[in-house]
Amino acid sequence: MEQLKVELGERSYEIKIGYDILSKVGQYLKELNLGSKVMIITNELVDSLYGREVEQAIKKAGFEVNIAKIGDGEEYKVLDSAKNLYDQAVNANLDRSSTIIALGGGVVGDIAGFIAATYMRGVNFVQIPTTVLAQVDSSVGGKVAVNHPQGKNLIGAFYQPKLVVADIKVLSTLEPRQLKAGLAEVIKYGVIWDKEFFHFLEAKREEILELDIKTMEYLLKRCCEIKAEVVAQDEREMGIRAILNYGHTIGHALEAVTDYQRFVHGEGVAIGMVAAAKLANKLGILDLADVEKQEQLVKDFGLAVSFDALKINKIIKALAKDKKVKDGMIRFILAEEIGKVVIKSDLPHNIIREVLEELGGER
Amino acid sequence: MEQLKVELGERSYEIKIGYDILSKVGQYLKELNLGSKVMIITNELVDSLYGREVEQAIKKAGFEVNIAKIGDGEEYKVLDSAKNLYDQAVNANLDRSSTIIALGGGVVGDIAGFIAATYMRGVNFVQIPTTVLAQVDSSVGGKVAVNHPQGKNLIGAFYQPKLVVADIKVLSTLEPRQLKAGLAEVIKYGVIWDKEFFHFLEAKREEILELDIKTMEYLLKRCCEIKAEVVAQDEREMGIRAILNYGHTIGHALEAVTDYQRFVHGEGVAIGMVAAAKLANKLGILDLADVEKQEQLVKDFGLAVSFDALKINKIIKALAKDKKVKDGMIRFILAEEIGKVVIKSDLPHNIIREVLEELGGER
Ligand SMILES: NC(=O)c1ccc[n+]([C@@H]2O[C@H](COP(=O)([O-])OP(=O)(O)OC[C@H]3O[C@@H](n4cnc5c(N)ncnc54)[C@H](O)[C@@H]3O)[C@@H](O)[C@H]2O)c1
Ligand SMILES: NC(=O)c1ccc[n+]([C@@H]2O[C@H](COP(=O)([O-])OP(=O)(O)OC[C@H]3O[C@@H](n4cnc5c(N)ncnc54)[C@H](O)[C@@H]3O)[C@@H](O)[C@H]2O)c1
Repeated sequence: MEQLKVELGERSYEIKIGYDILSKVGQYLKELNLGSKVMIITNELVDSLYGREVEQAIKKAGFEVNIAKIGDGEEYKVLDSAKNLYDQAVNANLDRSSTIIALGGGVVGDIAGFIAATYMRGVNFVQIPTTVLAQVDSSVGGKVAVNHPQGKNLIGAFYQPKLVVADIKVLSTLEPRQLKAGLAEVIKYGVIWDKEFFHFLEAKREEILELDIKTMEYLLKRCCEIKAEVVAQDEREMGIRAILNYGHTIGHALEAVTDYQRFVHGEGVAIGMVAAAKLANKLGILDLADVEKQEQLVKDFGLAVSFDALKINKIIKALAKDKKVKDGMIRFILAEEIGKVVIKSDLPHNIIREVLEELGGER
Repeated sequence: MEQLKVELGERSYEIKIGYDILSKVGQYLKELNLGSKVMIITNELVDSLYGREVEQAIKKAGFEVNIAKIGDGEEYKVLDSAKNLYDQAVNANLDRSSTIIALGGGVVGDIAGFIAATYMRGVNFVQIPTTVLAQVDSSVGGKVAVNHPQGKNLIGAFYQPKLVVADIKVLSTLEPRQLKAGLAEVIKYGVIWDKEFFHFLEAKREEILELDIKTMEYLLKRCCEIKAEVVAQDEREMGIRAILNYGHTIGHALEAVTDYQRFVHGEGVAIGMVAAAKLANKLGILDLADVEKQEQLVKDFGLAVSFDALKINKIIKALAKDKKVKDGMIRFILAEEIGKVVIKSDLPHNIIREVLEELGGER
């Protein structure tokens, strides 16, 4: 088992990474000295796979446990589901000392975190991420949110968990598409922070896709370390934290213009990273060789590097609605080389259009 | 004009208190170096009285201004109104650098603050409180929230404004009932923190009810100072901040069992303070003379000290749902003398019942 600490002063917390550790969750909770009531937020599928094991573990540790479910899919990460979850929290008589546990992927984690952040102005929050994306990204760093019809994650907060438990075993039941999508965020860490790690990913393609335990333990730990380091420097995204959005500017726009129906998050990010690499190259700050390496690694993990049947104008419009827009300027994270990125917010629109066209966008 | 600073490290902010200062709001905003877009959240009544003056002042300072309104009354401080406000924020194209201004009483301030706290995970927030209650209490300290059908302020956050502007002039249009209700919170500060201030209130009854400018400047400043001091010591209510809830435990319950239709907030607090004084006396920690002084001052400001036609059992049940309940224990703030309170959470239910009966509650 691996363990690491996210250093955020009095909001610091631990991430536990290991194989087959769900049964230990009750004991972990006990060590945190929380109130007696726990509400697990999950969905039907994840509950049927792992709900009982987690529930039993927590009950055995002496907690009173309630389970609340939301629908499965991004379209349920909305205020209406939140409303329903608040009702369930009230009915379960949760109080300020109670704990909300997210058991699931990023969708469950984000909305459960939003409930934890806002129910009674904040109760204890624990993440048990069950997708690659959630284990390497969404469960760490405290961004919680629900979507608005006109923008992803438009309603949210910064709210840190008290603990994150990432069990590699649960990844084996993931659909291949979800596994691959999660790897897009993994590649991201290589590009924004750690060339060595990027090389590791190039070399360990097979082991990763087969979920080899040792390889995955290292992979998950390194991703969480990088995210934790960035977040510790800039918890509320005033500056450097924005680099975690590498690939997300165009990625989010692609998700938005397809009403979150066509791409899963990581697939958007994968294409978004390729787009960002091409943008950086056109601006003369990134070598073509480094563009190609990114494109290749994305392909190696079975992810698409382009799209079709989408209008460039619609994508540009969606970009302007992005949260990352600051006083009218669209912000991009661009690589100067693999392992090093910069933030730019004054990109000429024609270059963005050119890249979208190369990726398959229609005029 | 008076000015004071709420010391919260990087979240510190100023409170400006004066007569006829709405026209200066644009200039104040400019000094804060915020983004170009501003959305004022208010209601029809306050907008018709003061909206144009504030809007013009802000426009003149070069900001783009949108106005969003909610219905007038506690029943609009709910998620459905929040949803509508999010829509308006999106339509106004607010981004992370934008500012949300609350122009109104505590209802407007609380929901506007909740929107500011959660829209894009937090945008700039400015309070222009227009009731006594909002000027001395709800606009200072960063508690923001909306109600849940089963509990007041059940959904919320801690989110500090960048500035608070309290204009004494606007209090002249308040309904007498609202003016008096706000004074309940003013009395509270005397009881929990400052015996001298309590004496000042006893002595200045007339000047206060007539809104004499000098008297009100001192009154508002002293209340904000006390609140700021308490909040600075305990921003997230882990300990001492709870004393600001003096009178609120039973006050909230009375509001809840009457579906927020019968008592305005301060009226609940007024009765709640009398209840707390009686409880403290029955527990042997407060002299009868001090109970009577509180009761008298509440009466002096034209507030009720008892109620009728409410079942004690219903009130007790509502108490158990209160946010201040910690792992099943109802928490009370009790005075040991005027100017000094303690927190107690193990009160015998029969004493609570006894006091509720003395106040007019039905078995
Ligand atoms: N908070 C952040 O910092 C952050 C960062 C990145 C992404 N996100 C958010 O994360 C969300 C995407 O998360 P996701 O990719 O995990 O999607 P998801 O939560 O929708 O999970 C994907 C699918 O896998 C299923 N699933 C989950 N765990 C499983 C398991 N162990 N076995 C079998 N099936 C399982 C889910 O039911 C779902 O159908 C988006 O809403 C995105 O905005 C948040
Ligand atoms: N956040 C906190 O720390 C905190 C503290 C105490 C109370 N509160 C909340 O504050 C709310 C109560 O606030 P309130 O007492 O200000 O009630 P309110 O906001 O409903 O205002 C009372 C009435 O006065 C009207 N009004 C406001 N300003 C006016 C003016 N200048 N002239 C004429 N009419 C005016 C309003 O339209 C309303 O009808 C409750 O929801 C309570 O929970 C919050």
